[in-house]
Amino acid sequence: MSSEAAFIQALRAIATHPAARGLCDDAAVLEFGGETLVMTHDMMVEGVHWLSGQDPADVAWKLVAVNLSDLAAKGAEPVGVLLGYTLGRDDARFLHGLQQALDEWQVPLLGGDTVGGNAAQQAIGLTALGRATCQPVPSRSRARIGDAVWLTGPVGAAMLGFEALRDETGADSAAFRRPAPRLIEGRALAPLVTAMMDVSDGLLLDASRMATASDVTIALVSDDVPFPPTLPPARADDALRWGDDYELLFTLPAGTEPPVHATRIGVVMERDDSPVLLDGAVPHGRLGYLHD
Amino acid sequence: MSSEAAFIQALRAIATHPAARGLCDDAAVLEFGGETLVMTHDMMVEGVHWLSGQDPADVAWKLVAVNLSDLAAKGAEPVGVLLGYTLGRDDARFLHGLQQALDEWQVPLLGGDTVGGNAAQQAIGLTALGRATCQPVPSRSRARIGDAVWLTGPVGAAMLGFEALRDETGADSAAFRRPAPRLIEGRALAPLVTAMMDVSDGLLLDASRMATASDVTIALVSDDVPFPPTLPPARADDALRWGDDYELLFTLPAGTEPPVHATRIGVVMERDDSPVLLDGAVPHGRLGYLHD
Repeated sequence: MSSEAAFIQALRAIATHPAARGLCDDAAVLEFGGETLVMTHDMMVEGVHWLSGQDPADVAWKLVAVNLSDLAAKGAEPVGVLLGYTLGRDDARFLHGLQQALDEWQVPLLGGDTVGGNAAQQAIGLTALGRATCQPVPSRSRARIGDAVWLTGPVGAAMLGFEALRDETGADSAAFRRPAPRLIEGRALAPLVTAMMDVSDGLLLDASRMATASDVTIALVSDDVPFPPTLPPARADDALRWGDDYELLFTLPAGTEPPVHATRIGVVMERDDSPVLLDGAVPHGRLGYLHD
Repeated sequence: MSSEAAFIQALRAIATHPAARGLCDDAAVLEFGGETLVMTHDMMVEGVHWLSGQDPADVAWKLVAVNLSDLAAKGAEPVGVLLGYTLGRDDARFLHGLQQALDEWQVPLLGGDTVGGNAAQQAIGLTALGRATCQPVPSRSRARIGDAVWLTGPVGAAMLGFEALRDETGADSAAFRRPAPRLIEGRALAPLVTAMMDVSDGLLLDASRMATASDVTIALVSDDVPFPPTLPPARADDALRWGDDYELLFTLPAGTEPPVHATRIGVVMERDDSPVLLDGAVPHGRLGYLHD
């Protein structure tokens, strides 16, 4: 087990409030006043979550997008964000991208904190707050045997974008740099799904998390998984394990059609030895992106 | 102007939602579900906000305390926190201090994010959410001419604690390591004050911020400012400029007595050339802790 996994495991012993959902979900869900508040906080660290040479405007965009993606997975409507920022090499570019992302999704910046002092490594965080639009708020844990498993879009585009950027090939890298949270899709799906989450760390890994939370096995069919048209067939295996695409993975009762564009990629089965099966077998190797 | 100040100034152009209070207050204040949500996010960076050799349990405690102090300044009741954490050299000690602080103030951990990958410099952030207990929620901007200026406790203890720790003198450093947010005092004061804030960056600097936000001048009397009994008289000037004590600075109409222990340290005057006066004169030098 990585030290990150061990730390999160220890945090779970502290996070006993039901709103924390055992730290096993995309966001915390808290009754507040007469409504339901959905909250998430994601950090990004230079050299870990972005390449040191990347445009800070893209980094800002992505910081907003990944947090709003967690709200999308709950079908929540964003109400605002708080920014934690350590000054970097081009703060004006960061602000430009921040403004673009907030404008794009019509989300207000409500507050936060700025730290100066020449940090050796830039670390930034964002808290996103949202308003639940339906009850119960979707979770990862209610997939039921016999449900169909769906995905809102292809996986692998962010991987190709990252490689284009890293290798400076000049190929399109927008999918990695400027992901779009599936807010509209999440709201439309929330009243219908049995379980929902965003795919941030790899389809196989995130599917296994949903399956574990629901105590089922998710059986995926690789030929049914959508990939970007530019993906070389030999990279399909990698694309199933790469994150950063921020599509929504969800389950619907058999026979229910999703109200948004989505592809059926598998079925929910009784719990087997493995939480996820690919073409009927246990997937080989790592399932996705696990920080060491 | 420091680059941090320039960045915050640029952020203000983005943070136009009224809940952001122009990024000039301790926290954001948002109507939600028929109640009022108070939100704050503070970051701490190794080597900037704590000494590299410090006990991570103290760092965790302080991260919680400084955020809850912002809620205290709004008279808010804490409802939960979200943690952004990069793994450090002793995560178990950090968790120990986190648990201690959350237990002390009975605040649940609701979620957050953990980043591994050997960060060169540890950066951590906390978002604290609270419920306002009275309307209007106190701000910095409503101090009125003729009001008395009050402080809930001494300034300078954190400075002495920091120096004891840095110089390894063995003297008591608890005031720096384990500050206590004035949550009870904040709630008792909130319905009465005209303005309130916590003193995090230095009494003179924070008083000048309150004065600027209220478009008044705050005239302080140095002999009336409470100092810890261990403060050498020659250090009084420094103590007025050092932060980290997290006492509440507030204004009350003349004749109103505070319902909690506090010391009257000055008066609110018509706006003068300087937002803050000390013993009738413009204070010399820097007013407090400004990050470069």
